[in-house]
Amino acid sequence: MNTFTVKAYGAESTTADLKEMNIERRDVTSKDVEIEILYCGVCHSDLHTARNDWGGTIYPAVPGHEIVGRITKVGSEVTKFKVGDLAGVGCIVDSCGHCNSCKHDLEQYCENGFTGTYNGKDEHLGGHTFGGYSQKVVVDSHHVLKVPENLDLAAVAPLLCAGITTWSPLKHWNVGPNSKVAVVGLGGLGHMAIKLAKGLGAEVTLFSRTPGKTEDAKQLGADHVIISTDEAQMDSVKGKFDVIIDTVPYVHDVNPYVTTLNINGTHVLVGYLGGLEPILNTVPMILGRKSVAGSVIGGIAETQEMLDFCGEHNIVSEIEMIKMKDINEAYERMLKSDVRYRFVIDMQSL
Amino acid sequence: MNTFTVKAYGAESTTADLKEMNIERRDVTSKDVEIEILYCGVCHSDLHTARNDWGGTIYPAVPGHEIVGRITKVGSEVTKFKVGDLAGVGCIVDSCGHCNSCKHDLEQYCENGFTGTYNGKDEHLGGHTFGGYSQKVVVDSHHVLKVPENLDLAAVAPLLCAGITTWSPLKHWNVGPNSKVAVVGLGGLGHMAIKLAKGLGAEVTLFSRTPGKTEDAKQLGADHVIISTDEAQMDSVKGKFDVIIDTVPYVHDVNPYVTTLNINGTHVLVGYLGGLEPILNTVPMILGRKSVAGSVIGGIAETQEMLDFCGEHNIVSEIEMIKMKDINEAYERMLKSDVRYRFVIDMQSL
Ligand SMILES: [Zn+2]
Ligand SMILES: [Zn+2]
Ligand SMILES: [Zn+2]
Ligand SMILES: [Zn+2]
Repeated sequence: MNTFTVKAYGAESTTADLKEMNIERRDVTSKDVEIEILYCGVCHSDLHTARNDWGGTIYPAVPGHEIVGRITKVGSEVTKFKVGDLAGVGCIVDSCGHCNSCKHDLEQYCENGFTGTYNGKDEHLGGHTFGGYSQKVVVDSHHVLKVPENLDLAAVAPLLCAGITTWSPLKHWNVGPNSKVAVVGLGGLGHMAIKLAKGLGAEVTLFSRTPGKTEDAKQLGADHVIISTDEAQMDSVKGKFDVIIDTVPYVHDVNPYVTTLNINGTHVLVGYLGGLEPILNTVPMILGRKSVAGSVIGGIAETQEMLDFCGEHNIVSEIEMIKMKDINEAYERMLKSDVRYRFVIDMQSL
Repeated sequence: MNTFTVKAYGAESTTADLKEMNIERRDVTSKDVEIEILYCGVCHSDLHTARNDWGGTIYPAVPGHEIVGRITKVGSEVTKFKVGDLAGVGCIVDSCGHCNSCKHDLEQYCENGFTGTYNGKDEHLGGHTFGGYSQKVVVDSHHVLKVPENLDLAAVAPLLCAGITTWSPLKHWNVGPNSKVAVVGLGGLGHMAIKLAKGLGAEVTLFSRTPGKTEDAKQLGADHVIISTDEAQMDSVKGKFDVIIDTVPYVHDVNPYVTTLNINGTHVLVGYLGGLEPILNTVPMILGRKSVAGSVIGGIAETQEMLDFCGEHNIVSEIEMIKMKDINEAYERMLKSDVRYRFVIDMQSL
C-alpha cells in the first residue's frame, strides 16, 4: 500500500516531551477520504496516552481525536463527501461493521473492538494509528463526520470527543424538555454536558465542590448550581434528577449523588474507570429503582446527529487556542485544571 | 371507628415464638373490602420483621403479605369487587394516591411512603398494621387484587410478593421473546423469576454456585444453568444477558455478573439491601453501557397485570403447605434454605 509523509507532533517515549516528527499516511483507498487537519482539540486521553499513564502506549505516540478539517481527496466509492467539504474525525477510525453493535450504529461498543484514532491497531498499514496532531489524516469515510458550516470550526473540534461523550448518555437516557439533568464536574466534558442538556431543553444543575464556578456554570446555561459539600443544599435536591452525567475522572463517592436521583433515575459515569469507593449503597437504588451506569463516547450516526444538532442550536465548545509547539505546556496546565474549557491546537502552527 | 376481633398469629417480642393472639380489624369503610384469608405465603421479610432483624419492628408483630382469600364484605363505594370474589393483597395496603409515583401507578415508590401490609403505620385505626397471618383483613379496595379463578389458590399467594418483585423489573427492563435473562439465586424470588421470564418468552439462565440445582432449575423452565464458581462457564456467557435478576439476599460480588451483561444490559438487585462489596468496577459498565440497578416489589396495576398474565399462562409458585402452628419451624427451615420454594400457610388451620 502506497503512503505519503506528513508532519506530526508526538512523543517518542513515556517521559519525552512531544516534538515534531514525520509519520506515514496511506493513500486513499476507494472508501477513504483524506483530510487536511485545521484544528485538533486536546483531550485528557491525549496526555494519558502520551505519558503511558494507562499502560499500552506504543511509541511514537501521536495523540489527537478531536479533529476538524477539509476534505482534500476522496476515494472512488465515496459519495458522502467531496473535495473541499468540512469534515470531522472523533475517537473511532475503524470498526468491524458486522457485529451486533456495529449493525446498530454502536461502533463505540464494537464487539471486535473499534480502532482508536491513535494508539489503535492500524488495519491498513499495520502498526498503530496516529492521531490528529498532524497535517493530514486518511480515514474510512463511514467514520468521518460532516461538520456544519455555520459554526466556529476551532470550537467544533471538542465536540468530537467531549461533546459526543456527554451527548450519547443524554440521548440514551431520553433527556428532553421535561428532564431534570445534573452534571458533576465542570471541565471539558462537564461544560459540554451543560450546553447539550440545556440545548435539549432540560433543566440543568451543576454539582460543584466549591462556589467559585457558579457564575461560569450559569453563563454556560446551568439553571442551578449545588455545592456538593453543603449538606443543606444536597438535601434540597433529594430525589430530583432524572439523569446525572458524572464527568469526574478520579475515584469519588457517588452515593450522595444517587440520593438526588428521582425514581427511575440514572447516574451515568463517563469519566472514571475503576472501582467505586466508598462502596455503593444499594438501599436507595432498590427503594427508588435507581441505576448507576457507564457510557463511553458515541457511535458515528449519533455523533453526526449531535453535530447537526449543534449546528441548529449554535452550540460549540468554549476553547483556548494554542500553537502546536505549546502542547507540552498545555498538558501541564490541564493537570492543574487550568483551562476553560478545552485547548484546541491551530494546526496551521505545525 | 368500629372494629371487630379476629384470630391471628404473631410475635410478642424479638425472641418470642409466634403464637395465637387476637387483633382488631376495622369495619369496612365505603372504600374497603373485607377478605377472609384462605392462604398466606411466608416471605423472608416475615421472619426478619418478627425477629426485628432490621430494627423498627413494633410488637405484637403479625407478618404475612402474600395474602389470598375471598371477599366477605364490600364498602358502599366499591365497584371493583363483590362478595364471594377471590382477592389478593400484597405488600402495600395504603399509599398517598396523589404523589408523582402514585399518579403513575408506582405505589411502591410512593413519595410519602406506602403503608406496608404489616408493621406499617395504620392510617385508619392508628397504631401499626397487622399482616396476613390472620383470619380476615380489611383493605382499601384500590390496593386489593383480583385473582384468576383458574389457578391453584394456595400457589397464587407467593405471587403477591415473590412474583411481583421479579415481574416488575422484568417488565421495566422490557423483557420479552428476544431477551436473554439470567437469574441469580434459586429461592422464593429466583424460582418465580425463572417462571415469569420464561413465560414472557425470554431465554433464561440460572446462575448457581453449585451443580445440585441444575435439574430443578430446568424443570422450572430455565434453558441453561451456569455454575458461577466455574470460570470457563462464566467466560462462556460473557456479554450475553440483557437483564440479570439478582435475588441473593446477602452481600456478594456482582462484578462477575456485570461482565456477563450485553451492551445496554442491566443487573437488577432485588434482594440485597446494603453496600456493594467487593467494590464495583466501572470499567465494564463504561465500556459496555451497562447498568447496576435496584427494584422493589411493584405497583398495584402492575401486580394485577402479573396476576392476569399468570392466569393466562398457568404460572404459580412451587409451594410447601404448612399449618399455622408450624410457622416457627418453617422459619428455621427457611434460614437453612430448606424449602422448595415457598411455604404457604393454610389459614383454615388457624
Ligand atoms: Zn477524548
Ligand atoms: Zn463491530
Ligand atoms: Zn415479601
Ligand atoms: Zn404516593
